[in-house]
Amino acid sequence: MIKSPLQKARSQYIPKLPQSLEESVSLITGEASESVADQKAIKDMFPHTYGLPLVTFAPGEFSENQILNVGVVLSGGQAPGGHNVISGLFDALKKLNKKNQLYGFIGGPDGLLNNSFIELDEDIVDEYRNTGGFDIIGSGRTKIEDEASYDLVIGNCLKNDINALVIVGGDDSNTNACVLAEYFKEKNVGIQVIGCPKTIDGDLKNDFIETSFGFDTACKVYSELIGNIQRDANSAKKYWHFIKLMGRSASHISLECALKTQPNIAIISEEIEKYKLTLNKIVGQIAEIVKKRANKGENFGTVLIPEGLVEFMPSIKKLIAELNDILASKPEYYLLKTNQEKRALITEALSEESAKVYSSLPDSFAKQLTFDRDPHGNVQVSKIETEKLLIDMVTDRLAKDQSFQGKFNAQNHFFGYEGRCAAPSNFDADYCYSLGYTAALLINAGKTGYMAFIKNTAQSSENWIAGGVPITMMMNLERRNGYVKPVIQKALVDLKGNPFLVFRSKRKEWASNTSYIYPGPIQYFGPGEVCDAPSETLLLEKESLLQEEPVTV
Amino acid sequence: MIKSPLQKARSQYIPKLPQSLEESVSLITGEASESVADQKAIKDMFPHTYGLPLVTFAPGEFSENQILNVGVVLSGGQAPGGHNVISGLFDALKKLNKKNQLYGFIGGPDGLLNNSFIELDEDIVDEYRNTGGFDIIGSGRTKIEDEASYDLVIGNCLKNDINALVIVGGDDSNTNACVLAEYFKEKNVGIQVIGCPKTIDGDLKNDFIETSFGFDTACKVYSELIGNIQRDANSAKKYWHFIKLMGRSASHISLECALKTQPNIAIISEEIEKYKLTLNKIVGQIAEIVKKRANKGENFGTVLIPEGLVEFMPSIKKLIAELNDILASKPEYYLLKTNQEKRALITEALSEESAKVYSSLPDSFAKQLTFDRDPHGNVQVSKIETEKLLIDMVTDRLAKDQSFQGKFNAQNHFFGYEGRCAAPSNFDADYCYSLGYTAALLINAGKTGYMAFIKNTAQSSENWIAGGVPITMMMNLERRNGYVKPVIQKALVDLKGNPFLVFRSKRKEWASNTSYIYPGPIQYFGPGEVCDAPSETLLLEKESLLQEEPVTV
Repeated sequence: MIKSPLQKARSQYIPKLPQSLEESVSLITGEASESVADQKAIKDMFPHTYGLPLVTFAPGEFSENQILNVGVVLSGGQAPGGHNVISGLFDALKKLNKKNQLYGFIGGPDGLLNNSFIELDEDIVDEYRNTGGFDIIGSGRTKIEDEASYDLVIGNCLKNDINALVIVGGDDSNTNACVLAEYFKEKNVGIQVIGCPKTIDGDLKNDFIETSFGFDTACKVYSELIGNIQRDANSAKKYWHFIKLMGRSASHISLECALKTQPNIAIISEEIEKYKLTLNKIVGQIAEIVKKRANKGENFGTVLIPEGLVEFMPSIKKLIAELNDILASKPEYYLLKTNQEKRALITEALSEESAKVYSSLPDSFAKQLTFDRDPHGNVQVSKIETEKLLIDMVTDRLAKDQSFQGKFNAQNHFFGYEGRCAAPSNFDADYCYSLGYTAALLINAGKTGYMAFIKNTAQSSENWIAGGVPITMMMNLERRNGYVKPVIQKALVDLKGNPFLVFRSKRKEWASNTSYIYPGPIQYFGPGEVCDAPSETLLLEKESLLQEEPVTV
Repeated sequence: MIKSPLQKARSQYIPKLPQSLEESVSLITGEASESVADQKAIKDMFPHTYGLPLVTFAPGEFSENQILNVGVVLSGGQAPGGHNVISGLFDALKKLNKKNQLYGFIGGPDGLLNNSFIELDEDIVDEYRNTGGFDIIGSGRTKIEDEASYDLVIGNCLKNDINALVIVGGDDSNTNACVLAEYFKEKNVGIQVIGCPKTIDGDLKNDFIETSFGFDTACKVYSELIGNIQRDANSAKKYWHFIKLMGRSASHISLECALKTQPNIAIISEEIEKYKLTLNKIVGQIAEIVKKRANKGENFGTVLIPEGLVEFMPSIKKLIAELNDILASKPEYYLLKTNQEKRALITEALSEESAKVYSSLPDSFAKQLTFDRDPHGNVQVSKIETEKLLIDMVTDRLAKDQSFQGKFNAQNHFFGYEGRCAAPSNFDADYCYSLGYTAALLINAGKTGYMAFIKNTAQSSENWIAGGVPITMMMNLERRNGYVKPVIQKALVDLKGNPFLVFRSKRKEWASNTSYIYPGPIQYFGPGEVCDAPSETLLLEKESLLQEEPVTV
């Protein structure tokens, strides 16, 4: 494998650990925990893993336990830092006992089912320290959700003498980790399960998990690009750039990038949903800002758009649901030849409200809603080019607006894959390494059904606190795909939280003025304030928290 | 203006100058020059600026001349480093004589015509050192090409006591700079004109200009993103990523990024043109590689596509020309309702050869060719989504290929605006600063009709050689828009050059294996091999040159 000069230099980086973990540690056991909601139901579903105490590690006596054979699984979409979770896990296991072994299951949860794994030895782990991607063992999206599968996993673990699993994933995968932990405990098979909080979307966080790993790096990559584009916009002075960003279930990425780059407009889906804003209303608001800037001679700007936007607009959500039904029940639609005929057939079948929305959509978007369907016959929302839709509709709106004297030319962008596998920032490199390290300590302490956590991450790493939180503590009941299930609560953008409030207090100024910030590329070797800063979201959240109450575990 | 931590840290960077420029310099005059071709005609067109000698600067006696009032113009598309050309120019002017002044014309050549400028003093220049973008004074694409305009420029310069202009631009703008220099000399108005070689596309280079500025940085940004996407492809193992890159007239960017990242496929337009490859042939070749990788279980990959590809395919070029004529002469086309009818009308009017090509195109692409037309009725080639076209056609091809057992899912990307205004790499920061510095020295030496150059740029900056090359020396006659004009020869990818040959020798291996390199983001503070390396293209070109003959001026 040929390595770039940066890869070579970066492979020498030694991630910072919380000071409390640098020597041997002892376990501090806190109070028994409760789930965030639906306590009775969650307790009934997880009799063996409910109510466990929060635990933290502090410098102390080192207690060597049995020899640990640990399997690690990367689950779901890639996030920067996954390889450092593995290197932290590896280093801690070897520090605890040289005979401890780490195995990596190949291709995500499938590896557990197929008994497909490799031994992760020093050579392999060294090759991947501080690199991006999940390519060391690959990832996958398979869900292990029936007893036959649980038993298969047990069989494979026992066959290979594996006594603990570390599952690195988002809210779904960690919920799944807890289900496995519960089942293993019920069956008394002696296999522990520890989770690690991963997702660039940033929507796996709560009182215990300050941030999910990868969010910091991905947002830094996107912000680099947004900054570059803003510099271009402000130099050429002739384009509006509509930039869609990953984040289907929540808009943390858009909010973080907005705080970092100060664009003219950033849409936050959670706000759209709360105030039931229609597409037309959003288009109108963008058009107003375009006009205002045009009046000052500034025919350029930037708009950040979260990927999941259309699903947060109640009217579009309703329209999509109706379209799914109509197209399933009217196969004659596909025989019609002209667009006009097709739209007429659909319009007739829609409710009055949805028909109105539908008639306001440009042809291209209307087609995306009716053409691209997944195997279940549903609209593939992720394929909807919201950024182009907004450009088309704003163009249309301004063309009809005789008071608009400016120019409106737009470019569209979508950033997602550019950031998911970036090499981790120092923050994510340190954070992930510490999470992996902590996961090993939790296993060594005999814990199961826990998620590794690192707190105080807005401060420098010497003050970080490491520990474990019972996964059941983060759960509530939610209806998903028609069933009520115990799941980890997704963290949407808190419209009363400091990050959003700061954004809201400034966005009017950002809209009319050109207040762009240019963050530039992630740096690894420079001054601390350039290389080590955590996300704006984290800093602002902690700022408000510090005002309310001191951070304790 | 709020600055990011990196902007603040980076503003302290002191660009490296060629050692020969660090103290006072004297001018070394070389032999009289000749143009690269059409010597007689170019000489007739440029009687006052033809045949001037190549000049270089060496340590020596400092000769103070008259007080210099210099105007600088940024022309055409943005390129990283423009601000450093200005800071180099400023610092050299002030070093020569504290009374020298620098003025920046606003919004490109328009500023010269409108007499719109600002004084660039220390405060302003300091604000923009080592930053990306052209926003210090803006840029523009206006061409100054008739005598009335030349006279307007003279009037404005004389009015403001400006005795020299520095024009920062690509081949067109520098040709224009030379036309102005010639006219000013003919009119004996005492206004000098010096050019600087700018373009991220890398197609302004020759024996004297080793590289155009901005190319290095832009390619590094694109390569960062391609590397990240490749890491994602290799982790998720489920997508082929089709990545279009800027570069309409030449494929240097695609070639450089390929050398940096080792993708599975990189298309070089110049090769397509030379071997008259059709779209179908290209699609067939991509499909073959997809199949080969699928047979090894690798249903993922990357394809780099230069923006100008379709214009290099003779058959598509011919088709586009015919379509332009047909649509201009058959307005009834626009009254037809169905796609089928439209395609039938066009097919009938096309030549047999073009009809065959047209019938092979997917609907979406056929529509782009016939719908989006510029004000002159021509297809807007830059809006053609070649990356999507190739995905559609490869999908189609594989669907019909019963021997294909793999999966083919693709994502498309286009990178352009992400890199044009990035903050310059150390190479571009140093190179641009030195170019600006040299431009001031050329003015001080009384030169006009020259382009500033820096040679030996593949070596460390202490060995760089600074000088000026007569712009006429790079000219030949070409037919452009129906007229034969003197222009600076565009440098296409040399199919016999070392960069392409190295690429060609490796691409078979890159296609079937997964040989990705992950360059990561531009670094400013780390080890030299990470921060200071010039482009692969430059290194490989110089490598072959060194084998043939030593570099001399």
